[in-house]
Amino acid sequence: MAVNEIFQYSIISALMDGVASKGLPISELVSHGNHGLGTFRHMVGEMIILDGKLYQMKSDGTVSAIDTSAANDHVAPFAMVTRFRPTKTIRAAFSNKKELFEHLSKDFPDSRNFFLAIRIDGVFKCITVRTAGGQQTPGEGLLEVGKRQVSHTFDEPVRGTVIGFRSPEYTQCISVAGDHLHFITEDRTQGGHILSFGTDGEVDISAAQISKWHVELPTNDPEFSKAKLEGDKEGIASVEG
Amino acid sequence: MAVNEIFQYSIISALMDGVASKGLPISELVSHGNHGLGTFRHMVGEMIILDGKLYQMKSDGTVSAIDTSAANDHVAPFAMVTRFRPTKTIRAAFSNKKELFEHLSKDFPDSRNFFLAIRIDGVFKCITVRTAGGQQTPGEGLLEVGKRQVSHTFDEPVRGTVIGFRSPEYTQCISVAGDHLHFITEDRTQGGHILSFGTDGEVDISAAQISKWHVELPTNDPEFSKAKLEGDKEGIASVEG
Repeated sequence: MAVNEIFQYSIISALMDGVASKGLPISELVSHGNHGLGTFRHMVGEMIILDGKLYQMKSDGTVSAIDTSAANDHVAPFAMVTRFRPTKTIRAAFSNKKELFEHLSKDFPDSRNFFLAIRIDGVFKCITVRTAGGQQTPGEGLLEVGKRQVSHTFDEPVRGTVIGFRSPEYTQCISVAGDHLHFITEDRTQGGHILSFGTDGEVDISAAQISKWHVELPTNDPEFSKAKLEGDKEGIASVEG
Repeated sequence: MAVNEIFQYSIISALMDGVASKGLPISELVSHGNHGLGTFRHMVGEMIILDGKLYQMKSDGTVSAIDTSAANDHVAPFAMVTRFRPTKTIRAAFSNKKELFEHLSKDFPDSRNFFLAIRIDGVFKCITVRTAGGQQTPGEGLLEVGKRQVSHTFDEPVRGTVIGFRSPEYTQCISVAGDHLHFITEDRTQGGHILSFGTDGEVDISAAQISKWHVELPTNDPEFSKAKLEGDKEGIASVEG
């Protein structure tokens, strides 16, 4: 895949319906991109991929680097990745997700109907991340899994990297409409899905606008084939927004 | 692109919002597939692609083969194509679209959350097709264009080919959920978007289930960048169903 195209495996509505027993092998996922996010089998933890390295951030507070070169048991039931080559990098500060949204909208004024791949490097404060603990039973939906998520607020400003995507409104239920961002600390020991955050001074915000979106649906997965996938827009916004 | 993957240019909500002044050059479109459907600049007529040949079927009743090898002025503001390799072909009769839908659902029992590429060859009766006459002003939406569509019911059974796609419900507003079918007669002189039809005896129904969907969004198109794309599900079903 060329740079700045999105490869997406499965659809977010499938996670909502609890389709997470199988997934795309990690080694195959990273063949499509070096920058992205997703989840793991049974929604155990949050996935972040930066500079081609893939980490699993779990609700017990641990972060593990996953070997992407070899066959192993790790799969992604849902993920979005790209070969990231930023077309614009700005230095800016923001105090919440809304201000970040506005920064990006100003820098990419014609982006509302496109995707953005986003990376932010710097020192963050007031950052709260959540990590999904996983399904208690196969087929348990994301809303239920989300009710048991562990959230962690950093006491001190922390240096690290944010990786994510903005997806246009019309993709809601397939992708996650709006900004969907994961975080990992510079020392790669903590992180998760960002619930809220701001910056401690200016940070580097890099992004690229994306117009090519490749969706691969799970085959040989009875959970996916039988899922209703009716699309709970409000539910997705509440658990992934 | 490999066989039985869908390449889609733009999204159906963009046509609803009247985004049809620009589009993908035809020569580029057919590089992604030899089987498909779509529309032309300003929604003038219906597009059908079979065996790599592309035809424009207009509301004045004419059908023109379009040269796909060279640069010309023809573009597709919306289209879906695939390199079609059927995985199943059945002989069957049906008396309406609903019966065809049921046939395909029976032959592809796990297809509800996937795409199908469809081709039907044989003799059809009670076939009514419509052809869009095009926008009267740039930006006029598909619903308005559709109100002036010309529909034609064949008096006699007619031999020809049906080309189209079934798209899963969750793609509505991006693709056209359900069966979206265009028709052209064997002598390539008449055809259009199928509103209703049945068969005169058994016909050959070929299809392939598809799990890879590549969407390319229009770049350098201010109409697309500024479109609301709010997704009128009922409107799309009424004009494209």
